[in-house]
Amino acid sequence: MEGFDLARDIAALLPAAERLFAELRAASIDGEGVTREAFGPRETAAQEVIARFARAEGLIVARDRAANLVVSLPGRESDGRFIGVGSHLDSVPCGGNYDGAAGVVAGLLALALLKRNAATPPRTIRLLALRGEESAWFGKSWIGSHALLGLLSGADLAQRRGDTGRTLLEHLRDVDADVDAIAAREPLMRPDAMVAFLELHIEQGPVLEARDVPVGIVTSIYGNLRHRRIRCTGEAAHAGATPRSLRRDSVVAMSDLIVRLDARWREWLEAGRQVTVTHGIIGTDPHEHGISRVAGACDASLEMRAENEKDLLAFHGVAKAEAAAIAKQRRVSFAFDEPIVNLPAAMDKAQVNHFERICGEEGIASLRMPSGAGHDAAVFAHAGIPTAMLFVRNQFGSHNPREAMQLADFGLALRVLVRALLGGDA
Amino acid sequence: MEGFDLARDIAALLPAAERLFAELRAASIDGEGVTREAFGPRETAAQEVIARFARAEGLIVARDRAANLVVSLPGRESDGRFIGVGSHLDSVPCGGNYDGAAGVVAGLLALALLKRNAATPPRTIRLLALRGEESAWFGKSWIGSHALLGLLSGADLAQRRGDTGRTLLEHLRDVDADVDAIAAREPLMRPDAMVAFLELHIEQGPVLEARDVPVGIVTSIYGNLRHRRIRCTGEAAHAGATPRSLRRDSVVAMSDLIVRLDARWREWLEAGRQVTVTHGIIGTDPHEHGISRVAGACDASLEMRAENEKDLLAFHGVAKAEAAAIAKQRRVSFAFDEPIVNLPAAMDKAQVNHFERICGEEGIASLRMPSGAGHDAAVFAHAGIPTAMLFVRNQFGSHNPREAMQLADFGLALRVLVRALLGGDA
Repeated sequence: MEGFDLARDIAALLPAAERLFAELRAASIDGEGVTREAFGPRETAAQEVIARFARAEGLIVARDRAANLVVSLPGRESDGRFIGVGSHLDSVPCGGNYDGAAGVVAGLLALALLKRNAATPPRTIRLLALRGEESAWFGKSWIGSHALLGLLSGADLAQRRGDTGRTLLEHLRDVDADVDAIAAREPLMRPDAMVAFLELHIEQGPVLEARDVPVGIVTSIYGNLRHRRIRCTGEAAHAGATPRSLRRDSVVAMSDLIVRLDARWREWLEAGRQVTVTHGIIGTDPHEHGISRVAGACDASLEMRAENEKDLLAFHGVAKAEAAAIAKQRRVSFAFDEPIVNLPAAMDKAQVNHFERICGEEGIASLRMPSGAGHDAAVFAHAGIPTAMLFVRNQFGSHNPREAMQLADFGLALRVLVRALLGGDA
Repeated sequence: MEGFDLARDIAALLPAAERLFAELRAASIDGEGVTREAFGPRETAAQEVIARFARAEGLIVARDRAANLVVSLPGRESDGRFIGVGSHLDSVPCGGNYDGAAGVVAGLLALALLKRNAATPPRTIRLLALRGEESAWFGKSWIGSHALLGLLSGADLAQRRGDTGRTLLEHLRDVDADVDAIAAREPLMRPDAMVAFLELHIEQGPVLEARDVPVGIVTSIYGNLRHRRIRCTGEAAHAGATPRSLRRDSVVAMSDLIVRLDARWREWLEAGRQVTVTHGIIGTDPHEHGISRVAGACDASLEMRAENEKDLLAFHGVAKAEAAAIAKQRRVSFAFDEPIVNLPAAMDKAQVNHFERICGEEGIASLRMPSGAGHDAAVFAHAGIPTAMLFVRNQFGSHNPREAMQLADFGLALRVLVRALLGGDA
């Protein structure tokens, strides 16, 4: 793929990127933030923004049987296999404009750039603008990729969207998805037809910003293990009349567990073991608790994420062991509900190395990092498809209206993506 | 007061005590427990049980201007001054039969015993069967004693009872209290008319049971300092994408505060400083929190009790200092709401020593102990009336239907009370 100046071509495309983001925002503005409901009108409107631009560039536009938008640039090989690139178009309610959309716009511009240069890639490249990635709508995450691979269960299809109260199956039918095939768990694509999947996404945390690096190269997508509820049961007692030695205080015991797991997490990090530990929810029962009453019960959630399954299960063991020790010392009991487990997904090593080599050659500072957040890329990786992700530095986190991204950073990541799609050295 | 055998007389009265407790229970049974609503029909029915017995014994029965029941045994002095004895007749909703009632029955039987022995005490003794002690009904505690001393504010009188929705003023009028005088904050008795107040009460904690001692001698009633809400504010963040070092986690920070205050409490106890520390309420905001979200805010209550004001304020300082240290270390902030303070009340030293001497002479094992719970006795003590309390060992705590007390223990405490009322050696 000689004959074009990538830096110049991308600089020329950035105004188009800016217009596309503005159109996407305008199509989905919701007060301060944007809302693109999974399998809803504003997600479809965002598809239309992408499709319109793609058609104007002479790219092939279609919808797959899961109603995801697919934009194709045919390659020289005619075996039906393709390289996938893309991300998702839905957002959380009142979220930001870049989570998901950045990767779709990047894939679109990559195809447009090749098309404008009359470059026929060795292999067909398909942009997948996926639907229903965010769990905010149906509880279930990554619906578009799950549907493509025949992975949606009857229980998934019966989930109702919080705002409409209608089921995922009904919403899939609304957008003309092949609900019979999906309900039959029929794969809508052969996993081996997609020879690779590359996803660009804003980083959803503050690491790149804190380290002053524009591009992240994802080494793996963390798995997670979640307890929606750990219940600590002690004994309710009169706060004035019950001495410390005779208390079985559930609030102190739960606090002790949280502080100990925080300390153990710090030890793990110091030892180089990557894991995250979060208690997003804690509470005593409003029907039972009182200022002057030692609380008889206290609930908290526990979410752990780790780069590999071994660490995930090992830290789960740490949590159980600390709880058992506290139960004995503080004469309480801990009951963990059934854990929900999503296994980690390793990114394709060859592609990770390739991303890094490209960054080095282009003089773009980059950082290898795991993705703590989950992505459709993990679904494809679990299906055996060589998968990799690029992160773009962003400010103010994700899933909120303040979510941000500098266009210059986006341009750098796009340059890496285009070179990677070309499969070799530009 | 020679001429009667106290142990024999009390043994003879215990069947009457048993019948009185059974009648009180029958008048206020509420499913499993008893309910005697403050300024309500079942509290009044309990007064009637006491009044009927008192009349049958030839004692003088009246109601004071706060609608408390007053049973009198006239003494030889005619200066209008009297020794008060008693406790309260209301209960918490679905509570136990002994919290409050034990002290009223004890005072009644003490008067009956003296009357049966034709003993005219040097000074008039009055049993006060007080109303509205429990805060469960109007938020306000110790209403009967507050009313007597002209201490109810307009805000207190405007409090509504949770179950009826009607104000304290309306409920006072229902039971024919002198609401004009009460609203004018007019004292309904001269504090110096009551030369002493003695209250017998079940212990509301498990100390006597754990130490195998039937009678407690209260040295002081703890004061308390309450924060209904301490808010810890950090920053909401993506649980997967936000590393530990960049988090401002309000749940971990609040847990840290709770665990540190528990440790400091233990240190204080080891150093012999009496205090209690309770976080009865903790919670993240259900409208904001999520399993996969570092919580931006977490609230908890803090209640401290101590035997003296110095310790109360000193431990409050400890709590503030620990919060400030955590705020710095964990990059969060703590906001304490306006504290509610009830000052400690010292019991009359001479009476405490007298109780102890009597126990020694009667061969009754006793334990000096502070009262962590509040009582009407504290209100009288604050008014300058020499006040003292006896605890009776009880099982299963208080404010619940399983609340218990052995009649034999009650008999021992009653013996001490009768001797104390006689003001010298029987």
